Amino acid sequence: MAGSSPPAHDAIDVLRAKRDGVELTSDQIRWIIDTYTAGRVPDEQMSALLMAVFFRGMTPAELAVWTQSMIDSGSRKDLSSLGRPTADKHSTGGVGDKITLPLAPLVAACGVAVPQLSGRGLGHTGGTLDKLEAIRGWRADVDERAYLAQLRDVGAVICAAGDDLAPADKLLYALRDVTATVESIPLIASSIMSKKIAEGADALVLDVKTGSGAFMKDADASRELARTMVGLGEAAGVRTVALVTAMDRPLGRAAGNAVEVAESVEVLAGGGPADVVELTLALAREMLAGAGRPDVDPAAALADGRAMDVWRRMIAAQGGDPDAPLPQPAERHVVTAPATGTLTRLDAFSLGVAAWRLGAGRARKEDRVSASAGIVWTAGVGEQVTAGQPLLELHTDDAGRIPRALEALEGAIGVDTDDRPLPLILDRIEV
Amino acid sequence: MAGSSPPAHDAIDVLRAKRDGVELTSDQIRWIIDTYTAGRVPDEQMSALLMAVFFRGMTPAELAVWTQSMIDSGSRKDLSSLGRPTADKHSTGGVGDKITLPLAPLVAACGVAVPQLSGRGLGHTGGTLDKLEAIRGWRADVDERAYLAQLRDVGAVICAAGDDLAPADKLLYALRDVTATVESIPLIASSIMSKKIAEGADALVLDVKTGSGAFMKDADASRELARTMVGLGEAAGVRTVALVTAMDRPLGRAAGNAVEVAESVEVLAGGGPADVVELTLALAREMLAGAGRPDVDPAAALADGRAMDVWRRMIAAQGGDPDAPLPQPAERHVVTAPATGTLTRLDAFSLGVAAWRLGAGRARKEDRVSASAGIVWTAGVGEQVTAGQPLLELHTDDAGRIPRALEALEGAIGVDTDDRPLPLILDRIEV
Repeated sequence: MAGSSPPAHDAIDVLRAKRDGVELTSDQIRWIIDTYTAGRVPDEQMSALLMAVFFRGMTPAELAVWTQSMIDSGSRKDLSSLGRPTADKHSTGGVGDKITLPLAPLVAACGVAVPQLSGRGLGHTGGTLDKLEAIRGWRADVDERAYLAQLRDVGAVICAAGDDLAPADKLLYALRDVTATVESIPLIASSIMSKKIAEGADALVLDVKTGSGAFMKDADASRELARTMVGLGEAAGVRTVALVTAMDRPLGRAAGNAVEVAESVEVLAGGGPADVVELTLALAREMLAGAGRPDVDPAAALADGRAMDVWRRMIAAQGGDPDAPLPQPAERHVVTAPATGTLTRLDAFSLGVAAWRLGAGRARKEDRVSASAGIVWTAGVGEQVTAGQPLLELHTDDAGRIPRALEALEGAIGVDTDDRPLPLILDRIEV
Repeated sequence: MAGSSPPAHDAIDVLRAKRDGVELTSDQIRWIIDTYTAGRVPDEQMSALLMAVFFRGMTPAELAVWTQSMIDSGSRKDLSSLGRPTADKHSTGGVGDKITLPLAPLVAACGVAVPQLSGRGLGHTGGTLDKLEAIRGWRADVDERAYLAQLRDVGAVICAAGDDLAPADKLLYALRDVTATVESIPLIASSIMSKKIAEGADALVLDVKTGSGAFMKDADASRELARTMVGLGEAAGVRTVALVTAMDRPLGRAAGNAVEVAESVEVLAGGGPADVVELTLALAREMLAGAGRPDVDPAAALADGRAMDVWRRMIAAQGGDPDAPLPQPAERHVVTAPATGTLTRLDAFSLGVAAWRLGAGRARKEDRVSASAGIVWTAGVGEQVTAGQPLLELHTDDAGRIPRALEALEGAIGVDTDDRPLPLILDRIEV
C-alpha cells in the first residue's frame, strides 16, 4: 500500500466527503451534477458516489441543491402564458393504477390545467403511456407548441417527457439501474421531483403507494419518501401535498393496458369501481386546492359528464379515437375462487407480475407491450366470493404465457385469511 | 418510478447482496473477480461494489475467497525448486522506512531466501524500488529466469512485480484510487495479501505501521488490518506474523532515496540508527522463525559482515555498483532546532510530505523521482537538542521546491511538548 495523499480531483473530494458522512457543499453538488451530465466525471466515480449516498443519505439542504442541479441540467417549463392555474399528480407506481387517466381530464374540467409528462412501465407496474397507447391512433409524443396549445384548448395533456426535462436524471437513472442504487429515498425523491418541478405546474400532488405492489413495501419508508418529496417541492416553490395510499391489493378491477382504459372510461361515465372513484376524487380535490380552487367539487364534474368531454377532446387532440373499440385478447383464462367467504387477499405484487408475464409490461426498455394483455377481476378485497365462481380473467395474445402468469398468482388469493387490508388512504402529508 | 423487478444480471445480484449486508457466496465472488478481470463487468458496477464493501466490509470467509480469486487472476509462484526455505516481508508504508534494504540481505545471509517483489512510492511514503534506483546501474526489472537464478545464487532479490502477479489487483487498485475506496480494511488486506501470497514464500512477516505517517493513523485500525492480513496468509498456507510498529515519527535519520540507501549501508556495516537496527533485527527474527530457522541469530550476520556481502552481491546481480558514490543534491537547506530540551515531536507525515515536495516522491504514477532529494536529521525523538543547532537538512535538485517543503514542516518539530511517542513495536499479531 503506497501512500494516501489525495489527488487534486474534485470528484474524489466529493466522494470522500459523502463516504465519510460530511455534508457536501452546494458548490460541490452543482459541480458534480453539471460535470457528470457533461460527461466529464466518469460513470465509475458517479456510481461510487451513488452507492455512498445509498448508505449515507443526504441532508435536506444537500438534496434540495442536488434536485435543483438536476432540474438545471435541462429547462424548467414556464406555463404562466396559460393564464390559468396548473396542477399535476405523480404516482410512485402501482398495479392497476390508472388514476391519471380519469384524473387529468377531471381536474381540467374544473378549470385547472394538467400538464402531465409521463413515463412508460418497467417491471410489474404499468406505465400511463402504455395504457393510453391501447387507444387507436393515440400518440404519446407531442411537440412543445402542440403541448401548450392543447393545455390551453383542452386543459389537459398526458404525453411523453422531452429530452430537455432533467436530462441528468436520465443519465443517473440508467446508472442507478445497473449499480443497485435505485432503492435510496433521496435518489428516488430527487429523480421524481426534478422532473415534476421542471414541468412547471403551480401545484403537485404525490400519490405514494405502499404495500406489496408498491416500490416501497413499507408504510414508514413510504411516509419518509412522501415527506422528502413534499419538502423538495415546497423548497422549489411548488405547493406540494402527498397522499400515502394502499397498494397491498391492486386498484379497481383491472390491471393491464386496454382493460385499464376501459375501467377509466367507466369512471368518467359516472361508474367504475368505488376505490378508483374515491382515490380519483381525493387526488382531484388536492390538486384543485393546491392550485387555488379549494371550493370546486370534482364529483359534480364527474357526474355531469364534463370530465368525459375533456377526456374525449384530450384523446382526440393526440390523434386518438375515443370511440374506437379497444383491442381484445386472443386468449382468456379464468381463475376461480378457491373457497366461499370474504376475499381478504388479492396480492398486488402477484397480480402485477402475472399481468406483466401475460404481456402487459416490459422487462427491458426496448421491449414492446401488448395492448390487450392484462387481468380483470370480479371481486375486490372485502367482498364475498363463492367457491368456484370466476374470480380472475387473464388476457393475453399468447396462450404460452399463461402458465408462468399462473405461477405468479400462487398464494395471491386468500379467502377468510388473517390479512388486514390497508385503508385506501393511509396518510396525508404536507409541510 | 417504474417497477423494481431485478434484471437477471449476476453483477446486480452481487451488488444488492453486498449492499444489503448479505454474505456473498464463493461462486458469486469468484464470478465477479474473474468476470471483472476479463473486462465483462463494467467499472461502474465494480466501483459501486467496492463502495458497498467499504460500508459493509467482508466476512473472513468472503475475504479469503476474494483474495484467492485475485491470486488466481494470475499465477502463484512456485519456489520449491530453490531447495531452501523462503520468507518475505511487507510494510504498509512509512516515512524513512528503508528496512527492506538491510533486511533482505540479512535474512538471506542466515540461509533463508527472500523473494521481495516490491512497488514504487506514491504520495508521502517512499518506494523501495525508487530508493534502490539511486544506486548507479541498478535495475528493478528482473525476468523470471534471472529472478530464480539470483534467489538461488545470492539468496535475495528485490525487484518489480511482473504483470502476472495478481493482475486483478492492478485493475481494482486503479479503480479504488479514483472512487475513494482505498481506505477499506478488507480491500487493503486483499490487495496486499493477493500479491504477497502469489509470490510463493513459505513465510511472511507484515510490518503494519501506525501513526501520522502511516496509511492507518489509528493503532486499533492498524491492529485490525494486521489481524485480517495474518488470517488471509494463514488461510492460504503461508506462515504469517505481523508487527504493529510506530510511524508517528520517521524511521532512522533519513527519508528520501539516496539518503536512505546510505543509511541502510551503515546498518549493514554494523552501525546506523538504533531504531532501524532494532526493527530490522526484529523482522529478521520473525522471518527466520516463520521459515523454520528460529535458532539463527541475525545480529551475528549483521556484525560479522555476512549481510553486507549479500547486499553487495544482490545489488551487483541487478547491474548496480555498490561502490559507486550516491547522487548528491544541488541544494541543501538547514532547519535548526527551535528550542533547547528533549525532542518530543518529529512528525512522520510532515517529514514525508516535505521529502515528497523536495522531489523524493511522486504525485502521479508517471512522475519521475529525484534520487538525491530527501531529508536527513541529526536527532531522533527522545534525544536532547539545543536551540539553533542544525536539526534537519533538506536535499533537493531544485531550490524552488524548498519553500513548500518548509510549509509542510510547520509544527512538525516539538521540544518538550506533551507528545507521547509510540513504542517502536506496539504489538505482535499471529493467529
